[in-house]
Amino acid sequence: MAETGTLHDAFIDELRDAYDAEKQLTKALGKLARAASNPQLRDAFEAHLEETQEHVERLEQVFESLDEKVRGKHCEGIAGIIEEGKSVMDEAFDETTMDACLIAAGQRAEHYEMAAYGTLIAWAEAMGHAEAVKLLNETLDEEKAADRKLSSLAESGINQSAADMAHPVQSSRR
Amino acid sequence: MAETGTLHDAFIDELRDAYDAEKQLTKALGKLARAASNPQLRDAFEAHLEETQEHVERLEQVFESLDEKVRGKHCEGIAGIIEEGKSVMDEAFDETTMDACLIAAGQRAEHYEMAAYGTLIAWAEAMGHAEAVKLLNETLDEEKAADRKLSSLAESGINQSAADMAHPVQSSRR
Repeated sequence: MAETGTLHDAFIDELRDAYDAEKQLTKALGKLARAASNPQLRDAFEAHLEETQEHVERLEQVFESLDEKVRGKHCEGIAGIIEEGKSVMDEAFDETTMDACLIAAGQRAEHYEMAAYGTLIAWAEAMGHAEAVKLLNETLDEEKAADRKLSSLAESGINQSAADMAHPVQSSRR
Repeated sequence: MAETGTLHDAFIDELRDAYDAEKQLTKALGKLARAASNPQLRDAFEAHLEETQEHVERLEQVFESLDEKVRGKHCEGIAGIIEEGKSVMDEAFDETTMDACLIAAGQRAEHYEMAAYGTLIAWAEAMGHAEAVKLLNETLDEEKAADRKLSSLAESGINQSAADMAHPVQSSRR
């Protein structure tokens, strides 16, 4: 029996995965901010970068609340998403289309994190880790808000401006 | 100007990415189904595998509606998520914990797709591609439903059973 991992082991693995993902994202968000042309989009990425640094600290508090050593484990999922974002930045898109693509890349990262924190919270609840649940929920709320912010920026004109440049006739239906 | 990609080009790139992602997922969902112990979870993965095959066909219809050649482009994001799922399957977790982990892996894939289809729909709307919007929305609805189904299975007993095995005392608070 000692060889068989339990939900506690899986939970610690997931925490390490999330810890590494947040650290990878602190670098990626800086790149997204620098690549953005729209000033509000740049601000949104910068604001979420600051939040992401807090998410790293919050995960450290979760590890401590469980008397576990703070440790990361390479997160393959977010690495693939970041890789995809980098390829987009190498493309020669017009500025507004690039902004739309940066939003798309950012939202993939947010969605990955929403899934990861959703799992962590459900498992922490099942195991009765109240402090961890509280901390993880704070981060999940910020990931969801960051995703909504990116959607609202896309819909507030970035997508339509990019579409107008692509198809001046078709999309003049507004 | 001819060298600069527009939102149309970015949209076709995203469609190719989604097409490849769905194809990768048809293989991955079969593996998740075979690794599941809970019969309802196995059924859920198998049902979503069938839907995923329809998503592939639906994307072919989207390409056709735009007079574009059906083509995939390696999707790095979903590849990383699938890789992560495979690592989990190699772990020696107890059966119920493994089921909880398979749910977590499946939900990461669903969330990736929700972000991808969300972007595709927003861009198709901005460019006035009504037929594409309709088809992509049908798939997005199924991805969201698949995610909710996995959450409800996790909460209907899988997580709590796994927690009870991990911490028989702490989690007997029900």
